[in-house]
Amino acid sequence: MTVLARYLPVLDWGRAYDRSTLTNDLVAAAIVTIMLIPQSLAYAMLAGLPPEIGLYASMLPIIAYALFGTSRTLAVGPVAVVSLMTLAAAGSVATPGSAAFIAAALILALLSGLILIVMGVLRLGFLGNLLSHPVVSGFITASGIIIATSQLKSIMDVQASGEALPELLQTLASHVTNINLPTLIIGVSATAFLFWVRKGLKPLLMRWGMAARPADLIAKAGPIAAVAVSTLAVILFDLEAQGVKIVGTIPQSLPPFTIPLFDAALWQQLAIPALFISVIGFVESVSVAQTLAAKKRQRINPDQELIGLGAANVAAAFSGGYPVTGGFARSVVNFDAGAETPAAGAFTAVGILIAALFLTPLLHSLPIATLAATIIVAVLSLVDLRTPQAIWRYSRPDFAAMAATIAITLLAGVEPGVIAGVGLSLALYLWRASRPHAAIVGRVPGTEHFRNVKRHKVLTDPRIMTIRIDESLTYLNARWLEEFVLEQVADHPQVRHLVLMCSAVNAIDASALESIEAINHRLADAGVTLHLSEVKGPVMDALERSHLLANLGGEVFMSQNDAFAQLITLADAQDLPAASRDIWMARGLI
Amino acid sequence: MTVLARYLPVLDWGRAYDRSTLTNDLVAAAIVTIMLIPQSLAYAMLAGLPPEIGLYASMLPIIAYALFGTSRTLAVGPVAVVSLMTLAAAGSVATPGSAAFIAAALILALLSGLILIVMGVLRLGFLGNLLSHPVVSGFITASGIIIATSQLKSIMDVQASGEALPELLQTLASHVTNINLPTLIIGVSATAFLFWVRKGLKPLLMRWGMAARPADLIAKAGPIAAVAVSTLAVILFDLEAQGVKIVGTIPQSLPPFTIPLFDAALWQQLAIPALFISVIGFVESVSVAQTLAAKKRQRINPDQELIGLGAANVAAAFSGGYPVTGGFARSVVNFDAGAETPAAGAFTAVGILIAALFLTPLLHSLPIATLAATIIVAVLSLVDLRTPQAIWRYSRPDFAAMAATIAITLLAGVEPGVIAGVGLSLALYLWRASRPHAAIVGRVPGTEHFRNVKRHKVLTDPRIMTIRIDESLTYLNARWLEEFVLEQVADHPQVRHLVLMCSAVNAIDASALESIEAINHRLADAGVTLHLSEVKGPVMDALERSHLLANLGGEVFMSQNDAFAQLITLADAQDLPAASRDIWMARGLI
Repeated sequence: MTVLARYLPVLDWGRAYDRSTLTNDLVAAAIVTIMLIPQSLAYAMLAGLPPEIGLYASMLPIIAYALFGTSRTLAVGPVAVVSLMTLAAAGSVATPGSAAFIAAALILALLSGLILIVMGVLRLGFLGNLLSHPVVSGFITASGIIIATSQLKSIMDVQASGEALPELLQTLASHVTNINLPTLIIGVSATAFLFWVRKGLKPLLMRWGMAARPADLIAKAGPIAAVAVSTLAVILFDLEAQGVKIVGTIPQSLPPFTIPLFDAALWQQLAIPALFISVIGFVESVSVAQTLAAKKRQRINPDQELIGLGAANVAAAFSGGYPVTGGFARSVVNFDAGAETPAAGAFTAVGILIAALFLTPLLHSLPIATLAATIIVAVLSLVDLRTPQAIWRYSRPDFAAMAATIAITLLAGVEPGVIAGVGLSLALYLWRASRPHAAIVGRVPGTEHFRNVKRHKVLTDPRIMTIRIDESLTYLNARWLEEFVLEQVADHPQVRHLVLMCSAVNAIDASALESIEAINHRLADAGVTLHLSEVKGPVMDALERSHLLANLGGEVFMSQNDAFAQLITLADAQDLPAASRDIWMARGLI
Repeated sequence: MTVLARYLPVLDWGRAYDRSTLTNDLVAAAIVTIMLIPQSLAYAMLAGLPPEIGLYASMLPIIAYALFGTSRTLAVGPVAVVSLMTLAAAGSVATPGSAAFIAAALILALLSGLILIVMGVLRLGFLGNLLSHPVVSGFITASGIIIATSQLKSIMDVQASGEALPELLQTLASHVTNINLPTLIIGVSATAFLFWVRKGLKPLLMRWGMAARPADLIAKAGPIAAVAVSTLAVILFDLEAQGVKIVGTIPQSLPPFTIPLFDAALWQQLAIPALFISVIGFVESVSVAQTLAAKKRQRINPDQELIGLGAANVAAAFSGGYPVTGGFARSVVNFDAGAETPAAGAFTAVGILIAALFLTPLLHSLPIATLAATIIVAVLSLVDLRTPQAIWRYSRPDFAAMAATIAITLLAGVEPGVIAGVGLSLALYLWRASRPHAAIVGRVPGTEHFRNVKRHKVLTDPRIMTIRIDESLTYLNARWLEEFVLEQVADHPQVRHLVLMCSAVNAIDASALESIEAINHRLADAGVTLHLSEVKGPVMDALERSHLLANLGGEVFMSQNDAFAQLITLADAQDLPAASRDIWMARGLI
């Protein structure tokens, strides 16, 4: 594969493009376009931006991803969580809706794009790993709760701001008497309708004899019906005069060519939020892309995905958009509707372009409460209350990281929530890595197997101690190793030979090597000889480049069984004191 | 052990204290006191503080450590690296030598003490693990070079400041014409003498028939001779009038009772430097304490060491001192001189008290150049040029972390150096942890062993793929696992059964569990069944609390051999296409 082909996956799939692929892609694009029009308006407004920015963010970015991305079916564009993060980040430097706010959103898109591209070129995709599944899941659940709550303000038609739950609830509560009744009726009925469409329409259509897949796709288009009906209602009953807020005039235009403002101080303020937007967007997007690719045994390349998403965000920055990433629901619809190549994305962009040029007058009287309803129904599916239960049962440290992420995101906002989750995960990981499992082992009678003396009835010799280390030895646990081994020796004064059994040690770094050398010297000072057993091939190769083997008091045994047998003979020959010739059954004795 | 005994180790060793222990401790204390007097003056001046502060920092802190510390022989007090860090930290908020600077040093001692105590009570000693051996070694080497260079200014008697090497060298070079000749002569001859004492005196004394140990101890007292001779020279030849800078009047007093200034802004500025001082001091001190304890098969408790060192620093803060920790050279002298309990430390404190009350007039005419010479000779032994070579041979990533630490400490100062080293070590660790070793394995003919197909001639079946994972599965490598497994399956279209061989997997966290579930579902979508083999007991216990086993497409096999045999039979029964009944010798085929 040439360098060009690595960076431009389109050269790969473009060559095999034929008529049947075209038909499939066109059908998928039509369905995704219908779904995307209200979504893109709604998410832009969630982000505190004018609705048309959602349309702009759904054109060039999709095409940029189609050129550079590796997923065949990922649908890129505005998504809920990234919109919320944009609101929080741009809201920290400007008032939502203001020109400065729009400018900040462009800068966020550009910075996110550049960060993603740099990470892709340097192959730093692995940094996304720092976001563990429980942290991402907790973050998305908490974001869903915040977004849904924040949309209540549009349904109640009251002013409320703030990105953390307590303020939101407080302002909503204090404005509960100012509710606009027609708005509330539209919002509540649209929400109810959309929930029914999601849960009840597909079974109904299937009972009427429709096949599962088209029934599913029609159900996914439910928001369009809500949009049409509520818009008609506003026009017919002149609800605008009764205080129902509407979308209003959306300019009929191509996406504008925009150049993000260069302001060093502003860039510095937005750099960290942009980093969070990039990494969270990337992690979400890759997991969707992988799920879909695996179904057709296709491959995606995470480092190239960084470049694809980066290009999409840069495109958003120069075409009047805001940060974008691969959306879950939309990608699944694209996949189910039969999209075969990223060209489906390009056709979607054309569809949105047509909408932006010709259909926006139809959206003039669309009530904002209807858009709020589509957001609420969309994000409540992100709120996942079963995963926390499963994680609680499976692993308490993982649950702690998740709970901290949810609690701090809800109470203090999106960035502190992610930082808390990542920090706690890493601290717990390092804590666990710093005290790995190790066991004193003895021989299972009649076999060549060695097992933990605490769990099995095994043979041991008081002059010989074997410690099996169940983890790679690195600087994180090097000091633990010294402490553990020296404590064991201090506690067992009869020991004269100590064997480190390395069957589960996949690597030994320089710190751990130095610790083993220190152990070797200190044991020698205390009259104990250090041996190794069952050292793996690559580890042994590395040790041969060090001084350890030359200085080692004892030997390196290929098998633990050899070690045990030979050291008993040696200890006998040395006429070592204490129960010479006695081999103890160890349970309860050590 | 009661709670009180855990926090007050003195209750343990104090009970067995007898006359012979007393004698040994008194002898050791006398020797350490002689060594400590010039050292404590010199290190205080290195830290930019008046010399008497070094004496104050060698009294109450030692007693506090004697009460709370767990090492029998660690000698606590001013040390070179911590003095340099104090200069850098306090120097960022005040001019060295000023009252504000002395106040900042007290605050640093108090903050370090509190940080250490909190870490001890919360058992956070493992955070010290973040400082890998190469980083600590590189940091100490670079600090030694900086300290030695900075002391040249006293020997040349020129003004030079700055904590990074380039500025230091520049100011030294620009002042080279202003050298004070008598100062230079004293400094150079004291340095030469001390080097000779260190290398040549002990062999000489032994040739004269002295035993090795007393010869060694006398050689260690060399600095006292340099102090005496150079002081006499100053008095006899009235060198002060010729511009030789002297220590001057040291107040004859008990350590003063001081209360560190409470200034929230200042505390905030000094908190991070204090954290570095605490952690670096702790790591150095524990490694010395462990080395000495191991020689007598004694144990030290790192969490209690945090409390002991914390108490010492708090004591320093309230008695006119500055940050202290366990010193390497001094502790070794204490050990070699026969110290048996921390009481030796308390007697040393009394010795220093007597010196502070009665001997300081004798030090009035001590040339500062002599103190500079003692520092240079002491710290050049910290500069270790062989370790970098050994680490280069053993591990390039570890070498990179060390080189970055050395380079950035020299060029930008102590804090950036430590941050760079810790950050790079962690990033490299996480990078390696995110892409562990895994191998596709096949059966070694005629055995039940399974080995890497790339390294051995082994039997495989194209319908069955076995991947052996050589690391615990955590959130850091969960995404790698998904990518790796799905890529392998995408690349081998004949595969219908995939076995994850978990013999080296010591843990599976919630993220990795979710990834295995995702792999299971995605493989099922692609017509491949997932199996596990050789899952360890504790891992299996955890998996039984999850949904994985209920949803797993395939089975969990006790042994990989069973898995291979049963899956071949199963694949035959399923009449799977592609070379059914063929078992391939895998080298070169996969």
